[in-house]
Amino acid sequence: MSALSFSKISASLNALLATIGLATVAALTTPDITGQTRSALEIVLACVWAAYVLQLVETLIMQRKRDIHGRTLEIAVDVLSVLVPLAAFFFVRGRDQSLYCAIWLLKPLRGSTFFRLLGRVLTKEARNLIGVTSIFVIVLFGAALAAYVIERDVQPDKFGSIPLAMWWAVVTLSTTGYGDEIPQSFAGRVLAGLVMMSGIGIFALWAGILATGFYEEVRRQDFVRNWQLVAAVPLFQKLGSGALIEIVRALRPRVVPAGGIICRKGEAGDQMFFIVEGRVSVATPNPVELGSGSFFGEMALITGAPRSATVSATTEVSLLSLYSSDFQMLSSSSPEIADVIRRTALERRGTPPKS
Amino acid sequence: MSALSFSKISASLNALLATIGLATVAALTTPDITGQTRSALEIVLACVWAAYVLQLVETLIMQRKRDIHGRTLEIAVDVLSVLVPLAAFFFVRGRDQSLYCAIWLLKPLRGSTFFRLLGRVLTKEARNLIGVTSIFVIVLFGAALAAYVIERDVQPDKFGSIPLAMWWAVVTLSTTGYGDEIPQSFAGRVLAGLVMMSGIGIFALWAGILATGFYEEVRRQDFVRNWQLVAAVPLFQKLGSGALIEIVRALRPRVVPAGGIICRKGEAGDQMFFIVEGRVSVATPNPVELGSGSFFGEMALITGAPRSATVSATTEVSLLSLYSSDFQMLSSSSPEIADVIRRTALERRGTPPKS
Amino acid sequence: MSALSFSKISASLNALLATIGLATVAALTTPDITGQTRSALEIVLACVWAAYVLQLVETLIMQRKRDIHGRTLEIAVDVLSVLVPLAAFFFVRGRDQSLYCAIWLLKPLRGSTFFRLLGRVLTKEARNLIGVTSIFVIVLFGAALAAYVIERDVQPDKFGSIPLAMWWAVVTLSTTGYGDEIPQSFAGRVLAGLVMMSGIGIFALWAGILATGFYEEVRRQDFVRNWQLVAAVPLFQKLGSGALIEIVRALRPRVVPAGGIICRKGEAGDQMFFIVEGRVSVATPNPVELGSGSFFGEMALITGAPRSATVSATTEVSLLSLYSSDFQMLSSSSPEIADVIRRTALERRGTPPKS
Amino acid sequence: MSALSFSKISASLNALLATIGLATVAALTTPDITGQTRSALEIVLACVWAAYVLQLVETLIMQRKRDIHGRTLEIAVDVLSVLVPLAAFFFVRGRDQSLYCAIWLLKPLRGSTFFRLLGRVLTKEARNLIGVTSIFVIVLFGAALAAYVIERDVQPDKFGSIPLAMWWAVVTLSTTGYGDEIPQSFAGRVLAGLVMMSGIGIFALWAGILATGFYEEVRRQDFVRNWQLVAAVPLFQKLGSGALIEIVRALRPRVVPAGGIICRKGEAGDQMFFIVEGRVSVATPNPVELGSGSFFGEMALITGAPRSATVSATTEVSLLSLYSSDFQMLSSSSPEIADVIRRTALERRGTPPKS
Repeated sequence: MSALSFSKISASLNALLATIGLATVAALTTPDITGQTRSALEIVLACVWAAYVLQLVETLIMQRKRDIHGRTLEIAVDVLSVLVPLAAFFFVRGRDQSLYCAIWLLKPLRGSTFFRLLGRVLTKEARNLIGVTSIFVIVLFGAALAAYVIERDVQPDKFGSIPLAMWWAVVTLSTTGYGDEIPQSFAGRVLAGLVMMSGIGIFALWAGILATGFYEEVRRQDFVRNWQLVAAVPLFQKLGSGALIEIVRALRPRVVPAGGIICRKGEAGDQMFFIVEGRVSVATPNPVELGSGSFFGEMALITGAPRSATVSATTEVSLLSLYSSDFQMLSSSSPEIADVIRRTALERRGTPPKS
Repeated sequence: MSALSFSKISASLNALLATIGLATVAALTTPDITGQTRSALEIVLACVWAAYVLQLVETLIMQRKRDIHGRTLEIAVDVLSVLVPLAAFFFVRGRDQSLYCAIWLLKPLRGSTFFRLLGRVLTKEARNLIGVTSIFVIVLFGAALAAYVIERDVQPDKFGSIPLAMWWAVVTLSTTGYGDEIPQSFAGRVLAGLVMMSGIGIFALWAGILATGFYEEVRRQDFVRNWQLVAAVPLFQKLGSGALIEIVRALRPRVVPAGGIICRKGEAGDQMFFIVEGRVSVATPNPVELGSGSFFGEMALITGAPRSATVSATTEVSLLSLYSSDFQMLSSSSPEIADVIRRTALERRGTPPKS
Repeated sequence: MSALSFSKISASLNALLATIGLATVAALTTPDITGQTRSALEIVLACVWAAYVLQLVETLIMQRKRDIHGRTLEIAVDVLSVLVPLAAFFFVRGRDQSLYCAIWLLKPLRGSTFFRLLGRVLTKEARNLIGVTSIFVIVLFGAALAAYVIERDVQPDKFGSIPLAMWWAVVTLSTTGYGDEIPQSFAGRVLAGLVMMSGIGIFALWAGILATGFYEEVRRQDFVRNWQLVAAVPLFQKLGSGALIEIVRALRPRVVPAGGIICRKGEAGDQMFFIVEGRVSVATPNPVELGSGSFFGEMALITGAPRSATVSATTEVSLLSLYSSDFQMLSSSSPEIADVIRRTALERRGTPPKS
Repeated sequence: MSALSFSKISASLNALLATIGLATVAALTTPDITGQTRSALEIVLACVWAAYVLQLVETLIMQRKRDIHGRTLEIAVDVLSVLVPLAAFFFVRGRDQSLYCAIWLLKPLRGSTFFRLLGRVLTKEARNLIGVTSIFVIVLFGAALAAYVIERDVQPDKFGSIPLAMWWAVVTLSTTGYGDEIPQSFAGRVLAGLVMMSGIGIFALWAGILATGFYEEVRRQDFVRNWQLVAAVPLFQKLGSGALIEIVRALRPRVVPAGGIICRKGEAGDQMFFIVEGRVSVATPNPVELGSGSFFGEMALITGAPRSATVSATTEVSLLSLYSSDFQMLSSSSPEIADVIRRTALERRGTPPKS
């Protein structure tokens, strides 16, 4: 857990450091920054660099200690972030020195789960994305050729060769439309209209493929993660796989940090909670602690009464919430689960809750 | 029900008031509005403000009476909508006074179900959206850096520093293309083409993630809502959960206000109706009232005959429609339901319909 | 069938007539068209109008004869298409007379299934689309207000009032970027960047909602249509609803006009066909006719041999194709169907095919 | 297999040749290329053409030898790619001669699986795409008409006829925004804002339809392909169709070329592999070969231990991977499969693995 939370801090810190560093690089290129301001900014850069040296050292130590495989990418990023600016400092003269700190753009790629997800989607959809890109290129060349043929006599300075016309084509096909090159002839304008529509179509294809890829991958990830959490709750282990799939889709995972309030006494409740990992404390007259495998908050679902006690997290807890409406669904498809929950609820009404 | 309809009116009224108020604010900033017109517009603003004071009072009274929790956001919006313009009236001098009424932009957020849905989607997809946004920022900085290096000697006034180049980059990456800064060198134009394509790609990623998030959330909401409605119809309560899921997907919810016509005598019918809540009146020679749990319009599905009577809503009714084609599907997967419907239809042919 | 094919012709004819009519209207507004050309074009308009009068008459006759309900919209469009140009001819003087023929833009809405689908999607997603549109308006006003405050002193002619700034905001938020109004201050440019990103985000929301709506509606329509077709094939009627759902998803509907070739002798085949409606002729030495409920082309799936005979449509036929890969799937999930198909195939090898 | 890999090489080679050829065509149109450079480029074109002649010859020979049907499109592309430049060489004079090589843009369509997928999606969604395109045209004409009426007196040179106004409309509706024609009146700007919003909406519709079409088609293709692979693994053949569908969704196909390393000794493993086709070699002290139908890497899933041996592909192998998390899912839904895997794993611990 502490390693996880450390890596979370380090991700935010990384983003912050990279932002500061790159903003400084950008500021250093503006002509009105001179003298002392300049030196101050250079010190900021040096500090960020120093922080990255520390991070590299820490990564290498952890690497040795824990014998973790498959972190080659992270180490490569860390090493480059330190070495490239250092090399620039020694071998490059003048203002451009600081530009090499742009290598820090790579830092956010390190340890981000999103980039891994994106990588998987892009790999899976590679064939289709290459296909659309090749359509883009074919339409681009075709449009440039046609514009060259149509407009070369009207505007020889702007459409006088295919490369020139290609600049117009890419500006138009991407619907950017700088307006520096505009067809003047009727045929040229009809062509432009078709190119714009193709641009929108290609864009739509791209969006469609990426949406498809993301949906498939995200759905799979969510299902797998929830399945693992659900499998850890004893109550669910007797169920058939059909019912389990229903439950996995109904439950929503939630993580509460240590000390966080999960529900407050007197509030209206629309969900109950299953503890996957960690411990919570129920602030009844005789405070009770519940551990992994327990559930609480079920009275809100059965009687609709407001919360009878405040529940807070003793340690970081991983919970699964079951909403009132999903509980009704669950009750009709798996009466045995609903039974266990109802029986526990009745017992607890008399005695303080036990898991 | 009346509270619900009141809140509906109040939502439309809110939108209208906010539109009038903000249009007035906009009009007041145009230089050709002076003297009497000006005063008239200021009176309009005052009226809108007064209406908001009334709304605040009403919200506070309802709050106290009904002891409703979790409306903190609404009350905050209502209080700010009244206090900010008031404070501006006393402490700000000159034309800018009325600008503070822009706080009324927050009003539509109050009580809108869409914003709650959007909030859930954004929360759920936060990690992915942050990921795409960070790609956007990385590409933006990288493009600005490259454009600065490539074009700084060609157009020092437009690409002379990274911040200047970043303006070009954001205008290009978002495919806006103002046309005030355009790369002139060959390398610069190739870069621009790549930036445009990245822009389209990032846009597509964004669209893909949001489409995924919306689809998941909307499907879940619809399913849960329909499940609750279906569970209230006695006819469906004997069914297994597999059949229930099929029915939940086949039925389409519909709300008809009191007095509304549901179907007209002599029309061709392609759907039958289940009453979830409320009452309808069937205009047969001896008019009949049907209550929640009843169904009607089934003859259209069984015999294909036109509607034999006009049915109108006595109170606001919540209905579930079953289309002809879905009925055929249902008949083969759950013959028992089809049976009950057919038997009731036969009985009704002789005697006036009963629930 | 003939009414259907007539309506198909009429749809294409409608589109053609509307295109001719509107192109003529456009041509009549160009200044270089005068004298005889002008008169010729006006005659074209008159012809289109006459065609629409005929269509109106035909619609009214059919309406009376068949006593069809629910075509009010079509009749309204037909009546308006005739009356509006007529009224313009009598009451409007000068060049603008022909502009009123723009009412013909409504013609394609008449009888198009896509517009009905679109209508359903928009109705279903209305709440979400209104929500996104209201975000668009809120961001628009907020951006205009901010741009007005930031840029009014720098460029009073372009950002001197909120309505002026709103023009900039809408051009930027939609990523159109005409380039006539561009913020010059640093704060204004940061604002512009944020507005562009919001624009992309809103666009993505819109796309996400419409994609969701379309997917749901199209999937439902396809399923319902295929289900009805599958239910008409005797072979499938003994199956349980689980197996039926699998088959409905595996089969692909296809319509072949009378006289069309369905498969050619000697070709490699990757699909077999079920006849839903209509008749086909198998060109074996003793030609055979197969009617609805029969299937053919199954040898290609079982033995992989090329087609043994050319099959053509005697009447318009509605078919369901089953691809080779789907057949393997079907074989393992519903062995009984595969059995029937295999047995029929063996019988046919000896004797000419019977259904 | 070798035919497949040959066609893969030929696809990459085709793309390369087309790129070189078309880049040369583009270069030949720039005015600063003269004399020797020009001749050199023309020789490059001739070489590409010669390569295409060879390819045509090879295609024709293969066609004759193997008696393959349904490659008409490929042959047509190959013939045109050779004949059109040849005809241009003989019948066209001057610089435009080389432009006819643009026919090579068709080459990538030849044998690409993506274009076939795209074709199927476009065919399936044709009706909806035509519908959206007709909305595009209707809005385009309507916007042009309105802009003409509103702006013709203000800017007669830019909005003086409907065709002129239509140029503005298409530039705005596609959100390209060149900025050469901008409405100046208040009404014109409101119209422009509405046109931009419609543009975004139409774009979103397009994206939604294509996303839907792609998702349906890709999901179907994946399912069918995986189903065929799974059906080839003996272990899975005893399962019911429900369990099979679950497995088909859980397994991920992967192809490893001959000599490729599948997993390395000592690495942490999160997946096991089923061999569909081909052979792998397990580098245990007594190296073992496994053939199609075998599985390996299962210890990583059962005990979580690192890989005990490096496995490499002897021939090109087609594998199905099962991830750790999916294995847990599979274990609960199909205990019999998990059992077989566990028993085999135990046996192998003592003796070297056998299939």
